[in-house]
Amino acid sequence: MAPTVDEQPRVAAAPRPTPFTVVQRDPASAARRGRLQTAHGAIDTPTFMPVATQGTVKGILPAQLVEMGAQIILANAYHLSLRPGVEVVEALGGLHRFMGWRGAILTDSGGYQIMSLAPLRTISDQGVAFRSHLDGARLFLTPEAVVEGQVRLGVDVIMPLDECVPHTTEPAAVAVALRRTTAWAERSARVPVGADRHLFGIVQGGLDAALRRVHAEQLAAIGFPGYAVGGLSVGEERGVTREVAAITAAALPQDRSRYLMGVGLPQDLLRFVAMGYDLFDCVLPTRNGRNGTCFTWQGRVNIRLARHVRDPEPLDPACACPVCRQFSRAYLRHLAGTGEMLGAQLASLHNLHFYQDLMRQARAHIAAGDYAGWAAARADAIDAGERA
Amino acid sequence: MAPTVDEQPRVAAAPRPTPFTVVQRDPASAARRGRLQTAHGAIDTPTFMPVATQGTVKGILPAQLVEMGAQIILANAYHLSLRPGVEVVEALGGLHRFMGWRGAILTDSGGYQIMSLAPLRTISDQGVAFRSHLDGARLFLTPEAVVEGQVRLGVDVIMPLDECVPHTTEPAAVAVALRRTTAWAERSARVPVGADRHLFGIVQGGLDAALRRVHAEQLAAIGFPGYAVGGLSVGEERGVTREVAAITAAALPQDRSRYLMGVGLPQDLLRFVAMGYDLFDCVLPTRNGRNGTCFTWQGRVNIRLARHVRDPEPLDPACACPVCRQFSRAYLRHLAGTGEMLGAQLASLHNLHFYQDLMRQARAHIAAGDYAGWAAARADAIDAGERA
Repeated sequence: MAPTVDEQPRVAAAPRPTPFTVVQRDPASAARRGRLQTAHGAIDTPTFMPVATQGTVKGILPAQLVEMGAQIILANAYHLSLRPGVEVVEALGGLHRFMGWRGAILTDSGGYQIMSLAPLRTISDQGVAFRSHLDGARLFLTPEAVVEGQVRLGVDVIMPLDECVPHTTEPAAVAVALRRTTAWAERSARVPVGADRHLFGIVQGGLDAALRRVHAEQLAAIGFPGYAVGGLSVGEERGVTREVAAITAAALPQDRSRYLMGVGLPQDLLRFVAMGYDLFDCVLPTRNGRNGTCFTWQGRVNIRLARHVRDPEPLDPACACPVCRQFSRAYLRHLAGTGEMLGAQLASLHNLHFYQDLMRQARAHIAAGDYAGWAAARADAIDAGERA
Repeated sequence: MAPTVDEQPRVAAAPRPTPFTVVQRDPASAARRGRLQTAHGAIDTPTFMPVATQGTVKGILPAQLVEMGAQIILANAYHLSLRPGVEVVEALGGLHRFMGWRGAILTDSGGYQIMSLAPLRTISDQGVAFRSHLDGARLFLTPEAVVEGQVRLGVDVIMPLDECVPHTTEPAAVAVALRRTTAWAERSARVPVGADRHLFGIVQGGLDAALRRVHAEQLAAIGFPGYAVGGLSVGEERGVTREVAAITAAALPQDRSRYLMGVGLPQDLLRFVAMGYDLFDCVLPTRNGRNGTCFTWQGRVNIRLARHVRDPEPLDPACACPVCRQFSRAYLRHLAGTGEMLGAQLASLHNLHFYQDLMRQARAHIAAGDYAGWAAARADAIDAGERA
């Protein structure tokens, strides 16, 4: 029978040494510069992780990720376990070697994908039974199997199985899911992952501030080298996201890294950094890039618009990426208008560079001690540019 | 009234100095190493031109073209005149600057595309009236306008307007189209293109050896710095292509470059080089790449097949391209199977590298004096690999 939080003390796992060091704190906000040690290099935080769901950042070569300064990327254990399968990746030397990426890799457990994609789910304390969204095959995952799968993929940072609930769920039902997620976190923490690999806890709790605080404390009592915050930016209003994110960050240990999952727009990232978040991932740079939406310091640019037909200027004159150094808006508009693959590639490349640059500048301003004022001004300027 | 071959002597244009130098000849075949001077660098021949129909080699960055050793690429004046329009490219500084490519560019006139894509064509001696295949707009092109458009695009090598006929056309009808194509070639040759730009003649003549010879002589009498051979590999049997290509090459001046348009498989290119062809272009490396078909020295590999699921080997162990240096067949198969854009990019990148390497090795073997034997053995080995 699966243990639950009420049946068992929360001291099962010995505290692991933290791989995270806070290097510097911003005097006027909770922002901090930090360093997360992994077997594939040290990661300077705050940082943005390009999303490589299927083991590839869509349209981007690993060498381009290196060039833009990415130190860690995010893949998805659920998707990779279906295709090509954990045993295939393992037989080929692990995910780093499989996809030709020498930096660090964090995998999401796929709990969110199982809840959102897989049909015929049955969740019990033991685990989750579901069918593959690809071929309908019956699958069953326990928290232990989810961690073990990520160990076999060979990744650097592991996410445990959690139960994600829709943001419209009533607090009472959220509490039931939370109790199970905490029990699963304890079981996950008992799986040996090796000294070089880090298992994070995932804080859930819907949009309820009290539940978020309680869950953060429960996970902190188990003791993880880092904490992810899940279940945000899943349809709720942006103001609510910010409020819950701020409450949750404040409830987490100061000396561990904090990862805000699946979030968000550049201006919001600057605000989340000010709350003390260190790690981010989001599909926006690549997904928007494929649709011709490009991020700039003046807000988003829709490159498909006719106004760009003869525009010789780069996407963002303040950007030093290979796209802005070499190509005009007119050319990018031509590629988008003719449906050329290179258009999606270049827009994705610029957007990912932009997010890396955003985090690079955030780190520089924390180092300079003026982060709070700088970030508020930049975030407001981007918001203002989008309203213009 | 438009002049025709019968009404006017073929000495209208003063002979231009040839930009092409034969550096070395193969002792046992008509293969030759050469150099074609352009305003965007000297081109070592035989060479393969990656196809950039819309002003982009599909899925490939200009820097990757430089890295693979491409010195000249092919774009299409018809497509670019529709989107984004010649005046847009001109206003943005010409095609090189527009697409970020510093090497040489040859544009096809679009005669073939007008005949194959555009509806409601009416061909007269004066030119061709047709509707845009994109929006149905009425357009009219004269041979002069076609050359002038390419001058305005700023390209290095210009193709004249020609009349392409289906390969099933009767010789009598082919002769009528030929007479017009020759007249158009004479009118094209009178358009000033500047000392640094080269207008080639295009030999047509269907599959009729006598017509091909006559047309080659007619164009040679006009005097072009290079000669293209069109209307081959358009549906006829491969043996027939070879036969007509050989006859046509032999009928062209020895001291001018010869460009076999839109052809072909690697093993066939080795054979065409032996006939004395210098320039090639073909969509196969990129089009096949997008479909998961990859070229190797052992023939084509369909990377989608299940046999590659766990294959740790590169596409071609004899290939030193960035794809073969870094990625396994298993990874490429995973990308193709999940429909990931990077799969199309990597397969296209490998295929283009393979074609450049093919031409690099051809030049090296001409330099070593053993081209004929080497090429025959390699071409047969590739054919044998595909039958296996």
